[in-house]
Amino acid sequence: MERTHERDVYRWPVRIYYEDTDAGGIVYHANYLRFMERARTEWLRRLGFEQDELSEREQVIFVVKKIDIDYRSPARFNDEIDVLCAITRCGRASIEFDQDIVRDEVMLCRAQVKVGCVSTTSMRPCAIPTHLYAEMQHAAR
Amino acid sequence: MERTHERDVYRWPVRIYYEDTDAGGIVYHANYLRFMERARTEWLRRLGFEQDELSEREQVIFVVKKIDIDYRSPARFNDEIDVLCAITRCGRASIEFDQDIVRDEVMLCRAQVKVGCVSTTSMRPCAIPTHLYAEMQHAAR
Amino acid sequence: MERTHERDVYRWPVRIYYEDTDAGGIVYHANYLRFMERARTEWLRRLGFEQDELSEREQVIFVVKKIDIDYRSPARFNDEIDVLCAITRCGRASIEFDQDIVRDEVMLCRAQVKVGCVSTTSMRPCAIPTHLYAEMQHAAR
Amino acid sequence: MERTHERDVYRWPVRIYYEDTDAGGIVYHANYLRFMERARTEWLRRLGFEQDELSEREQVIFVVKKIDIDYRSPARFNDEIDVLCAITRCGRASIEFDQDIVRDEVMLCRAQVKVGCVSTTSMRPCAIPTHLYAEMQHAAR
Repeated sequence: MERTHERDVYRWPVRIYYEDTDAGGIVYHANYLRFMERARTEWLRRLGFEQDELSEREQVIFVVKKIDIDYRSPARFNDEIDVLCAITRCGRASIEFDQDIVRDEVMLCRAQVKVGCVSTTSMRPCAIPTHLYAEMQHAAR
Repeated sequence: MERTHERDVYRWPVRIYYEDTDAGGIVYHANYLRFMERARTEWLRRLGFEQDELSEREQVIFVVKKIDIDYRSPARFNDEIDVLCAITRCGRASIEFDQDIVRDEVMLCRAQVKVGCVSTTSMRPCAIPTHLYAEMQHAAR
Repeated sequence: MERTHERDVYRWPVRIYYEDTDAGGIVYHANYLRFMERARTEWLRRLGFEQDELSEREQVIFVVKKIDIDYRSPARFNDEIDVLCAITRCGRASIEFDQDIVRDEVMLCRAQVKVGCVSTTSMRPCAIPTHLYAEMQHAAR
Repeated sequence: MERTHERDVYRWPVRIYYEDTDAGGIVYHANYLRFMERARTEWLRRLGFEQDELSEREQVIFVVKKIDIDYRSPARFNDEIDVLCAITRCGRASIEFDQDIVRDEVMLCRAQVKVGCVSTTSMRPCAIPTHLYAEMQHAAR
């Protein structure tokens, strides 16, 4: 029951550069969150949505509401890792993802991420635009 | 029952600079993890322990094992925020913290953070050095 | 002829955390630019100007136009360093700074930084607001 | 006489994510230095050299000695940019690069970067390993 081997999981490759590491010789723990957002952005792009257009035309942006992350094994300088992204729930105003980071099928860390849809005019939660909601509902099934 | 008002909670002030924000006009979500580590580092320093000395003399470093973080309200450029740090549990090889970030007593985000003690020679979990363990046990009570 | 010992040089202390270092065990080279901006922000604050207010009330922001930086000696985890900030020239629409970073009077790096004043409405270069210009002219002498 | 159109210039594409931007709505100025290092790393990889292997087998690492950077026009969230990397000089213990960043052939910033070769054992400047030096000499012509 390894979710990371499912067919529908989106994979985004990331190379580790010096900028990502710390003096412990490993990737600085906060940086995995950067990698996970890159993968969500690319997953959304593959669905056909660009966040700058969503912001300009639909006046919505996505903001992270909650992250639960387990660190299992560190990534190191020069590693090639894969950041996985699987939508697990799509509500009217928020989306949930399972996001694992793996290196050659070794689990490095695992997170659940909840993202909210926010109006750029009111800066308050708002409904996900209908056409995007439909695509996400489809992807979440 | 607001833990953020308890007497024993350590507070570390952080000023928000441009480097901390993103194009959404708010602090980039991964950066709160950087601020929380600064507060843990300063809390440990106030207990009398420097991490570079612990690494050289005792061959131990601390690594983040797990973070559960809720984002409530964003910090913005130029804000002065306080990062709180309260130890909630000290085991033989790991420590748990409650860490809130507040601005004028408004809760911005709230996290539980688990940190493990790791040997710099084996890179495997190891016991926290005795004198540090004693201090932490005392602080956790 | 050490400019770093002059009376009028503003000093802003910075502590090095894990987030600032890389797997080489030293501060990642791009991060000194972050420290230098912190010092410029605090120098401006001491002159009595807040950048969020300048942006809202005067519709101006400052953007970096040019940096020449020499790296002499690295800073390391847990170091306490001082970031210096001395204005060397104030034109109608741009400002130049000498910025050294030192640790116990050892020079770590040295930079010349040129910053431009930009209108938030047109996003084009514009004149520095008069009262700020007067203060900077005074400081630059 | 646009060096960015020369045949031998290495190009590395970079996508701009939220992590790279700041509250000014543009890429934070220090982050262009991260992008430039990514391009140098990939340029070196294409020559056949991995920096983790150079460090382990040859006991050398590269450190940035000097950067002169001009910022012309900002990159924004979601932009696709190209980071160029052209070696201009290869000495016994240091290398110099011209590095431009462009978006659709619009120049965003332009830098000269000097990198030094350092022994991981002495942490002092040392000669570039012979086989790497030969490849770089060839590339610099």
